[in-house]
Amino acid sequence: MAQKKQNAFYAQSGGVTAVINASACGLIETARQNKKRIGKVYAGRNGIIGALTEDLIDTSKESKKDIAALKFTPSGAFGSCRHKLKSFEANRAEYERLIEVFKAHDIGYFFYNGGGDSMDTANKVAQVSKKMGFPITCVGIPKTVDNDLPITDNSPGFGSVAKYVAVSIREAGFDVASMAESSTKVFVMEVMGRHAGWIAAAGGLAAEKESDAPHIILFPEVAFNKEKFLKKVNQCVKKFGYCAIVVSEGAAYKDGTFLADAGSVDAFGHKQLGGVAPVVAQMVKDELGFKYHWAVADYLQRAARHIASETDVEQAYAMGKAAVEYALAGKNAVMPTIVRKKTKKYQWTIGEAKLSDVANVEKMMPKKYISSNGFHITEACREYLSPLIKGESYPTFKNGLPQYVVLKNEPVKKLLKKKFKI
Amino acid sequence: MAQKKQNAFYAQSGGVTAVINASACGLIETARQNKKRIGKVYAGRNGIIGALTEDLIDTSKESKKDIAALKFTPSGAFGSCRHKLKSFEANRAEYERLIEVFKAHDIGYFFYNGGGDSMDTANKVAQVSKKMGFPITCVGIPKTVDNDLPITDNSPGFGSVAKYVAVSIREAGFDVASMAESSTKVFVMEVMGRHAGWIAAAGGLAAEKESDAPHIILFPEVAFNKEKFLKKVNQCVKKFGYCAIVVSEGAAYKDGTFLADAGSVDAFGHKQLGGVAPVVAQMVKDELGFKYHWAVADYLQRAARHIASETDVEQAYAMGKAAVEYALAGKNAVMPTIVRKKTKKYQWTIGEAKLSDVANVEKMMPKKYISSNGFHITEACREYLSPLIKGESYPTFKNGLPQYVVLKNEPVKKLLKKKFKI
Repeated sequence: MAQKKQNAFYAQSGGVTAVINASACGLIETARQNKKRIGKVYAGRNGIIGALTEDLIDTSKESKKDIAALKFTPSGAFGSCRHKLKSFEANRAEYERLIEVFKAHDIGYFFYNGGGDSMDTANKVAQVSKKMGFPITCVGIPKTVDNDLPITDNSPGFGSVAKYVAVSIREAGFDVASMAESSTKVFVMEVMGRHAGWIAAAGGLAAEKESDAPHIILFPEVAFNKEKFLKKVNQCVKKFGYCAIVVSEGAAYKDGTFLADAGSVDAFGHKQLGGVAPVVAQMVKDELGFKYHWAVADYLQRAARHIASETDVEQAYAMGKAAVEYALAGKNAVMPTIVRKKTKKYQWTIGEAKLSDVANVEKMMPKKYISSNGFHITEACREYLSPLIKGESYPTFKNGLPQYVVLKNEPVKKLLKKKFKI
Repeated sequence: MAQKKQNAFYAQSGGVTAVINASACGLIETARQNKKRIGKVYAGRNGIIGALTEDLIDTSKESKKDIAALKFTPSGAFGSCRHKLKSFEANRAEYERLIEVFKAHDIGYFFYNGGGDSMDTANKVAQVSKKMGFPITCVGIPKTVDNDLPITDNSPGFGSVAKYVAVSIREAGFDVASMAESSTKVFVMEVMGRHAGWIAAAGGLAAEKESDAPHIILFPEVAFNKEKFLKKVNQCVKKFGYCAIVVSEGAAYKDGTFLADAGSVDAFGHKQLGGVAPVVAQMVKDELGFKYHWAVADYLQRAARHIASETDVEQAYAMGKAAVEYALAGKNAVMPTIVRKKTKKYQWTIGEAKLSDVANVEKMMPKKYISSNGFHITEACREYLSPLIKGESYPTFKNGLPQYVVLKNEPVKKLLKKKFKI
């Protein structure tokens, strides 16, 4: 446990979001307010790879204004990566190298901003550093658009994607409704969410009544039944004149085969998906003959800082701030969480979870959040999701474009002679 | 020329936009201020189809508040369609029916809100109504996301799509830049624009310096050269770490073959396109091996009222207003236009064009707007486009979602016994 003044290391991990930089902002601003305990905040260039290669960024070189601007800037300002550390037994060299780098730069605090895989890494660093006689205070900061981290009520990054998806399908729904009589009758929008349908579910918020878009949501949690689906599409077109569909990239048949499967695999061993929207649209065209259009939002949804949820931004900031406060309070191998209060009006506070309880656990959508026909969300789901997209937090615009900060990202002088190959 | 008090007919035509309802708002509000000359404004349900089938909407039944809300609502509030009237010789019955309906409902003003095809229709109605002894004052209102109407400096609807595209590729560019070291290196975003590259060009506004996204724009105006393209992609990845590409749905090979061709044809005989982004992305993967992601914005781009350009909204409103004023001034077979003043700071005023000069003419991008290597926009293009995306015009949000109006759209009592089959 670091009581003397030591430096801190911060890294962003995995897919970036519209608000992960808001967590960085909360963390750096809070660290700067605690200079007696925390020296400099070093960020890993491209996440944990920066720690392994001793490629550290000196955030103390950034102006107060630029750090504040992080709250309004999407993406990962220091770079992120999809490099997952193996177990200590399987790749001892990586852990030894990390501790070596941290020791050389007098780093007593390790802050890792990511999803389940990253919480696993942070937890291992806490254990290994102790074993190796250089104990480091490790605090995770939750981040994932997939909203699949356990214990925390929701994950920073999700609320903004949720808002983007709900806003987009509402707007596209209005568009299609006005043309459906003589043109496009079926619109399919593909959204992210590998195994959990949280993002797809958020699209459901746009539908305040049965006739509103989206009429159908295809969840990864519900086995795709072509016949039932086509019947529902046909019903919607007959009843409302058109049918707007939100489909999760993870939508799959009963046997687990994804509706669209690009076939390649990412560094974490997850299948890389994409292109389910055209598959679903073509199915509708072939079987029902309706004119269709489809959209694949892809990175646009998770980068859309211009329509970020204010709630999400505030929570992301608060998680970064709390991480520093927890570390200074001597808490180790924990992650701050968002706790929903049991009030009628949405209120939240900050809790904590052990990293060992968070690591590698995927929070699925509760069954009670999916309507009985499997095609929409329930009132319980709406109550859960609705506050998360609340509030707008617009960036500054100049000449019609949002002004996002690009940091100087000045490197810290390397102190180790040995290079490390990833 | 209508001098006595008569009713007006208004219809929305073709693909809807984020701001076509702002034109409707300008038109209806101005008509309501001129009750001595204009009785009621009847809107065609689903565009010109509503006129042919005598399915008229009585806009006088809508509250002042709801009409004002049209300024903030995307899509076509009365419904639009892709029905193109043939020549008088080829389908005399349609024109006779139109005049019959207009006569029955004492309609002396015909306002048609659409693109080049619609201006052609409005022009024909002006001619035919005169021939048939029931002269109607016909005024077109420009609308097209494609920005391909001639004479007018730009077309309402375009500025907002342009802003959406520029904002989106900037945000996605930030995202990819932060992950490129170990993940996605090439991002492809597909945008609309059949024959003219205006929308794709707008993406270029996001790049304020060479290293900014997008690094490559694929225009319909520039024959696609695979070898040259892949070389450029490779250069960008080497130089900037990643490559962000905006591709127009109309991008084509030298022989005119579209890079992606869905094969079907719409009511105007245009080929229906979609899906060029995955084609380009796969090409990059196959030849260069880079990890890719792609997005197809489709309707999201033209419906995105939440990020509409304030300039565009104001101009759309002004066109609707001017249409009424022109009609009341006795102008016939004209269309108000946007005229760019020759001032250093962007200023615009309202001009007029003859419908016969506008009809069926496509304004292409000038060659001087495309950089010499064919992959980006020039400074001249930037100067032209930049003011069109300026200003934000946010809708009201409630519970995190934009509040768009759905009108009552009460039908006008039918007066004709004869039905009409489209």
